[in-house]
Amino acid sequence: MSAPGKLNPLTSWNNGAAKSQIVDFVARVTQQDGPDFVPPAERIAVFDNDGTLWCEQPLQVQVFFLIDRVKELAGKDPTVKERQPYKALLELDLKTLMSLGKQAILELVFATHSGMREEEFEPIARDWLAKATHPKFGRLFKQCTFQPQLELLRFLRENDFKTYIVSGGGIDFMRACAEELYGIPREQVIGSSNKLQFELKGDCAWLMKLAELNSFDDREAKPQNIALHVGRRPILAFGNSDGDLAMLRYCKSGKGARLALLLHHDDCEREVAYDREFRLSPLGEALDRAEVYGITVVSMKRDWNVIFSTAS
Amino acid sequence: MSAPGKLNPLTSWNNGAAKSQIVDFVARVTQQDGPDFVPPAERIAVFDNDGTLWCEQPLQVQVFFLIDRVKELAGKDPTVKERQPYKALLELDLKTLMSLGKQAILELVFATHSGMREEEFEPIARDWLAKATHPKFGRLFKQCTFQPQLELLRFLRENDFKTYIVSGGGIDFMRACAEELYGIPREQVIGSSNKLQFELKGDCAWLMKLAELNSFDDREAKPQNIALHVGRRPILAFGNSDGDLAMLRYCKSGKGARLALLLHHDDCEREVAYDREFRLSPLGEALDRAEVYGITVVSMKRDWNVIFSTAS
Repeated sequence: MSAPGKLNPLTSWNNGAAKSQIVDFVARVTQQDGPDFVPPAERIAVFDNDGTLWCEQPLQVQVFFLIDRVKELAGKDPTVKERQPYKALLELDLKTLMSLGKQAILELVFATHSGMREEEFEPIARDWLAKATHPKFGRLFKQCTFQPQLELLRFLRENDFKTYIVSGGGIDFMRACAEELYGIPREQVIGSSNKLQFELKGDCAWLMKLAELNSFDDREAKPQNIALHVGRRPILAFGNSDGDLAMLRYCKSGKGARLALLLHHDDCEREVAYDREFRLSPLGEALDRAEVYGITVVSMKRDWNVIFSTAS
Repeated sequence: MSAPGKLNPLTSWNNGAAKSQIVDFVARVTQQDGPDFVPPAERIAVFDNDGTLWCEQPLQVQVFFLIDRVKELAGKDPTVKERQPYKALLELDLKTLMSLGKQAILELVFATHSGMREEEFEPIARDWLAKATHPKFGRLFKQCTFQPQLELLRFLRENDFKTYIVSGGGIDFMRACAEELYGIPREQVIGSSNKLQFELKGDCAWLMKLAELNSFDDREAKPQNIALHVGRRPILAFGNSDGDLAMLRYCKSGKGARLALLLHHDDCEREVAYDREFRLSPLGEALDRAEVYGITVVSMKRDWNVIFSTAS
C-alpha cells in the first residue's frame, strides 16, 4: 500500500477542487488511527462505464458493436435489411428507432447478444474490440478510455480499494474487456444481463443466453445490483448521468466518509460537450442538484489535462 | 503462495482417494509450466453451504433462525400462533408444514426476512448466531462448521484460489457470518435473495427487502447465478445433494483440469447418516451416478478424522 500523500499518481488531473477532494478522501479513509478510517474490506468504489470510464458519444460503444452485429446478420439474411427495427438501425435512423420503443431496442439486443452459449459470446466481443475504430476520434474504441480515470482506478486499488464497474452496458460485453482496459476482473463487473438457461447434453453442461431480460442495470437497479453482487454500500461512486443518481445517492447517504462524483462532458474541443440532449441517459437532475446532494462535479475541460488513454 | 507439496494442511483429512485427488488437483493447476496450469484469476472454487460447510441436520441452521424469529413475532402478536403456516412451524409439525406447500414456506421466510432495510437484517442474524445452540450437538451453530472444509478452504486460498459460497440459503443470512466462519468475504457469497426496493427520503437512500423472491439459488439456478456473479466457470465445486448437481456438472464439463466433490453424510456416530430421506434437498442421482459423472464422493466416516470446527 502506498502512502497517498507521498505518491501523486493523478498526473492527468489538474490541481483543483475535484482532485483535492479525491486525494483528501483517500487519505482520510486510509489513515489507520483517523476518525474516517475504513477497513480495506469496506473500501468499495463503483464506476459507471459509458461516459464515465470511456466515451459514449455519438453512441455508446456497445451500440456500434450491435450495428456491426446486425450488419453481419443482414449479410446472412438479406430480408433483415427490410424489417424494422433492423432497417432503422442499419440506416442510422435514430428517430424512427426511438419511435419503435423499448421493445424494438430489446429485439436488437437479443438478436445480437443471445441464442448462444455464454462462453461463445466472449470471442465475438473480443474480436470486434480488437479492431473496431471510433468514427470521430479515429482510434480503437478500446483506446477511448479516459486516462484520468485509469489513473484514479489504479490509485484507489493501490490504497486497497476494490473497484467495480456498475453500468447499463451488457455484463458479458464489458467482461470481455474490463480486465484489459481497466484492470477490473470479471467478477467485479455488474451490468445489464440476459436470463440464462442451464442445458445439459451427455457430459456437457452450459448456459444458454436467452432472448429475455434479467436486469436492466440502470437507475434504481444499480444500487439493487450492488447489494446483490457486493453486499456492501460503496464509499466512492462515480457516474455521469441521471441514470447514476440512485447509485451516487446510495453511496453518499451511507455512514462515515463518502465521495460521489459526476463527470460533466463539457469539452467540445477534446471530446464532446453535452448534457441534457443527444443521449440515451440524460443529465438534468444530477447536474442541477449536485451541490444539494453533495455530489462533486468533475469538469472534463477544467479538471483533466489529458482525455484519452495514453497507452498504445 | 505456498508449494502444495511442501505444505500438508489437510490434517483433518485421512489419507485416501479423496484427499489425494484434492492435493493432486491443486498441485497440477498451480504448476506454472505444467499441462494443467490454470492462471490464478481462473481458480474459482464454489462450495454449497448447508450440509457441505456446516451441518444441516435435523434442520438447516437458517430454519432454526426462522423458528426463533417466528417465536418473536408470536410474542408480539399472539394470533400468529393460531394461523398457518406459523402454527405448524411453532409446533414443529413438519408434515403439516410440507403439506401447505412452497408458498407457505415462502410466507414464513418473507415474514421473518423482509419488510426491513437491507442493513437492518444483519445485526438480527449476527445476534442470533452469537448465541444460538444446536439442539443435538450442544455447541453454537457457528461451531457446527466442518473442520476439514475449513482446512480445504484455507489450502485453496493459499494456492490463489478464490473461494465462493453458492447456496440455497439466504444471501444476507450467510453474509452475516461467512467472513467470520469461513474467511469468505460478503461479495463471494451467492445465495437465495429477496427483491430489493430502492427508497429515498430527504438525503437518505436505502434498499428495502421486499416480500418477493428474486432468486431461489438451488439446482439450475446455481450455475446461472455463478455466471451472473462471477462470470467464470468454476474449476472446483463441492456440494452434498442433488441440488448441487447442476453446479457440479457445470464445473466438471469445462475445459481443462476440474474437480467436483460430493460430501456423503454417512457417520451416525459423529454427525448423522442420511442421504435419500429426511432432507429438504435429497441425495439420489448425485450419489448413484457420481462415478459416471466423474464426481468424487467424500465419505465423512472414511475421509475425515475430525468433523466439527476445532476453533473455540
